[in-house]
Amino acid sequence: MQIGVIGLGKMGLNLALNLVDHGHKVIGYDSHAVIEENGFKKTASIAELVEKLETPRTVWLMVPAGEITESVISELTPLLAKGDSIIDGGNSNYKDTVRRAEQLKAQGLYFFDCGTSGGTEGARKGICSMIGGDAEKFKEIEPLFQDISVEDGYLYTGEAGSGHFLKMVHNGIEYGMMQSIAEGFEILNKSDFDFDYEKVAGVWNNGSIIRSYLMGLTQNAFSKDEKLDGIRGVMNSSGEGKWTVETALDLNVPAPVITLSLMMRYRSLEDDTFTGKVVAALRNEFGGHAVEKK
Amino acid sequence: MQIGVIGLGKMGLNLALNLVDHGHKVIGYDSHAVIEENGFKKTASIAELVEKLETPRTVWLMVPAGEITESVISELTPLLAKGDSIIDGGNSNYKDTVRRAEQLKAQGLYFFDCGTSGGTEGARKGICSMIGGDAEKFKEIEPLFQDISVEDGYLYTGEAGSGHFLKMVHNGIEYGMMQSIAEGFEILNKSDFDFDYEKVAGVWNNGSIIRSYLMGLTQNAFSKDEKLDGIRGVMNSSGEGKWTVETALDLNVPAPVITLSLMMRYRSLEDDTFTGKVVAALRNEFGGHAVEKK
Repeated sequence: MQIGVIGLGKMGLNLALNLVDHGHKVIGYDSHAVIEENGFKKTASIAELVEKLETPRTVWLMVPAGEITESVISELTPLLAKGDSIIDGGNSNYKDTVRRAEQLKAQGLYFFDCGTSGGTEGARKGICSMIGGDAEKFKEIEPLFQDISVEDGYLYTGEAGSGHFLKMVHNGIEYGMMQSIAEGFEILNKSDFDFDYEKVAGVWNNGSIIRSYLMGLTQNAFSKDEKLDGIRGVMNSSGEGKWTVETALDLNVPAPVITLSLMMRYRSLEDDTFTGKVVAALRNEFGGHAVEKK
Repeated sequence: MQIGVIGLGKMGLNLALNLVDHGHKVIGYDSHAVIEENGFKKTASIAELVEKLETPRTVWLMVPAGEITESVISELTPLLAKGDSIIDGGNSNYKDTVRRAEQLKAQGLYFFDCGTSGGTEGARKGICSMIGGDAEKFKEIEPLFQDISVEDGYLYTGEAGSGHFLKMVHNGIEYGMMQSIAEGFEILNKSDFDFDYEKVAGVWNNGSIIRSYLMGLTQNAFSKDEKLDGIRGVMNSSGEGKWTVETALDLNVPAPVITLSLMMRYRSLEDDTFTGKVVAALRNEFGGHAVEKK
């Protein structure tokens, strides 16, 4: 198939190359210069990209969620014709996706949300993708998802928004799994035993119940820095864990582990906490317990 | 090698068969009759088992942790000679293991703790094993662990107790990973989207960051019962999660996710809670909020 890819960053560029590998004709655009020679055509503007695509067009967006996605869609939409499709491959909030799909449907355009997992290596060599949108139109573009995904690694998930919803919950689960693995290693690290963490992650990744892609990555990390002495335990996040917790709240789902995984990330961003000061001050008030002075 | 196996239940029997597959001469004993024909010798008593083994003997225990393990070791120890080895392949508390290893060392016996993961299928076809105990003697019995484990699936973890400690923490991590996966599916289940959970687990297990053995088991479970309507959400536990949390407390490790995973298991064992009654009563007291009457 012929496909336009807007956004040629770490994920978009690898995805475009993956599509080219599978015989698709890619026309790419990025607002920043893309230096690498890629084996696909690049255009100087979104308008030029649209012009170069035959109808019905398929345009894949791989740009940051939020304002940038919104502005690209705003620029792109008036240039498209009835029957064209936009695929949002970024990590958009599913509520935005539901709204956009309705707006675009009113203009005769198809809007698909494709949640992807597997990182940049996955984007290049085979990803996991979860796609929401119009069921009939999906059949036309299904080969794209089949080709860029690992075997059995794509799923049509239903109406618009369902793909991003599923990706969001995937990330929430990821937060909990990562925090659980990490807590286990902290227990090892504070114990009197002397474990080789790379080897521990290695043996846990062979034949055990907790073997997993994440445990393999844990092994990789310890192979580079045996006690992770070179990095700080600052855990950033990029929105999807928060949205998962917000969704759990909206749906009245008790999700303590995913929630606390997120809270522990927030905690890790603070060197000291106001909570800690308040509790220390209260212990001093009622029991005369010493406080640490600044 | 020649090896005695005491305890021929689900794990022990499969382990014995696994050893036989690898050319080891197994002599087995179980306090209950073992009906199946297994391709290895069985004895009528622990004394007979010890008698049939050539010195230095190696006896693998695969019996329930706690009192049964204690009583089997008490019966076995006086029958053994200096230089013999006992391997505790069960899920013993590592503190018991440290104590036992010291006691047996004073009697000239070797005591190894082998934490195993991989379930009954693993026991039969290849397991993950973590072994603590005497480093020199370990080299003599290392082929046993190599043979019953998957490739790169065994690790000598150091002094006695370290194998069971590592298995304990493994199970703590497992609790957190399972709870996180489960919370994700509960969010899906309460959402307005209509997901096929078997397919979701399937796609998440192919190419995604959360692909894992547990996600494969999740897919299996949903393949048998698409919404798990046939079972209740009662989450039992068998000690190792609790020990992990106790250890985290002893070591001053903040391990909220593993801890809450355990607490949620306890919660699942109660149809109603006293906590709930107290909070409902208090809301009624201060705000006149309705309570549900029994």
